[in-house]
Amino acid sequence: MMEKELLIEFLTNGGLTIPRLLIENYSELGLNEEQCLMVIHIYSFIKEGNTFPTPDELARRMSCDSSQCSNHLRMLVQSGFLEIKQEKDRSVYTESYSLDPLWERLISLKFLTKNTETKMEQED
Amino acid sequence: MMEKELLIEFLTNGGLTIPRLLIENYSELGLNEEQCLMVIHIYSFIKEGNTFPTPDELARRMSCDSSQCSNHLRMLVQSGFLEIKQEKDRSVYTESYSLDPLWERLISLKFLTKNTETKMEQED
Amino acid sequence: MMEKELLIEFLTNGGLTIPRLLIENYSELGLNEEQCLMVIHIYSFIKEGNTFPTPDELARRMSCDSSQCSNHLRMLVQSGFLEIKQEKDRSVYTESYSLDPLWERLISLKFLTKNTETKMEQED
Amino acid sequence: MMEKELLIEFLTNGGLTIPRLLIENYSELGLNEEQCLMVIHIYSFIKEGNTFPTPDELARRMSCDSSQCSNHLRMLVQSGFLEIKQEKDRSVYTESYSLDPLWERLISLKFLTKNTETKMEQED
Repeated sequence: MMEKELLIEFLTNGGLTIPRLLIENYSELGLNEEQCLMVIHIYSFIKEGNTFPTPDELARRMSCDSSQCSNHLRMLVQSGFLEIKQEKDRSVYTESYSLDPLWERLISLKFLTKNTETKMEQED
Repeated sequence: MMEKELLIEFLTNGGLTIPRLLIENYSELGLNEEQCLMVIHIYSFIKEGNTFPTPDELARRMSCDSSQCSNHLRMLVQSGFLEIKQEKDRSVYTESYSLDPLWERLISLKFLTKNTETKMEQED
Repeated sequence: MMEKELLIEFLTNGGLTIPRLLIENYSELGLNEEQCLMVIHIYSFIKEGNTFPTPDELARRMSCDSSQCSNHLRMLVQSGFLEIKQEKDRSVYTESYSLDPLWERLISLKFLTKNTETKMEQED
Repeated sequence: MMEKELLIEFLTNGGLTIPRLLIENYSELGLNEEQCLMVIHIYSFIKEGNTFPTPDELARRMSCDSSQCSNHLRMLVQSGFLEIKQEKDRSVYTESYSLDPLWERLISLKFLTKNTETKMEQED
């Protein structure tokens, strides 16, 4: 019984699909492994519907503690990889994270590289 | 600008991950392609947060019309592949689809087959 | 033992990621559910390394028989959704399927639609 | 032209699907972020058909250099997360990595935890 539920969970929600662009290019953007995995955790939380995970929630899945997670979050925001969006719904403010700035940078990186390569090939 | 948003959408939400068990075994369960794709659409709607898509919403993505979609839905429920769950939240009833009965059947199919194969190999 | 292997298989290869563009727009391209699922099967075979599945292999996963699969394949090629690529490697010809024509059409559909929408919004 | 190919690549191979079990539990297994991301890179290389990536290939995607990658690889093998498999094909030995030991541990972790929880709930 228990096992059947776990199997269904495995089957229908067992995989997290991450953009290859991130996995293959984070170090080129200057991110290290802790920062990249923090990004993956934030991405995963957002997909599950939690758009503003706390440092505590992140720390529970990571090898660093809550205050180190706060530092990483601050660094990601300051370096322009992560954005905090504020929305007002009937006098209630809600905050959520957006990784769009990171995706934009990765897309630029890829397209610029490709175009430069093409140009250089043509010049040869 | 427009394109950048589309690219981010592609990158972060461009793929729908479907259990291989379904794709590879639906016909063995007696489902045809229309029924299997209806299942895939329901699965996709649920993932996007719409847990009770209407026949109209399904028809807009399919080659059959709204009343044929209703028939398919009825058939899927009657054959025990699809379940309608009712929840009451403060005197408001909400309905949602669950595909758990289908996943259970696919899991049984796979595990039974495998175990039978093992048994037969041992008997040889 | 048996179960552990199945679980690992579920975990690492249990999902097939299909472009949402296909699922959400095949009917707009004029494909019906049988044709769309045939595309999904071909896509899945290619991902597994079998780049030229036979009508027999396709029929084993579908509700139609081998000769109907041949017809569907012919139709997909004639309508410009599927391409057969020939490669010569040391006097040996190999054939493989490419779904690139289909992806190009889906991309055009999406980008054209979006651009038209944008234009119309601007004109209002 | 260039862009169309990139878009097709995004669409059909843009995502890497990683078991959530790994993302959500690596730290509980004693892995840190560098080790977890090394696992993800190995997993990704295997999926692409390169079953024995070199420290150099790994270092090109990571923030650590080739010799640090060697150390991480050694640690992963010694701690029983990663296995090196040798196969002999016509007097030629080939080596490949297998992450099965890691997946087995994650599965045990999940199932044991769940069963203990169930047991404790029953005892209450």
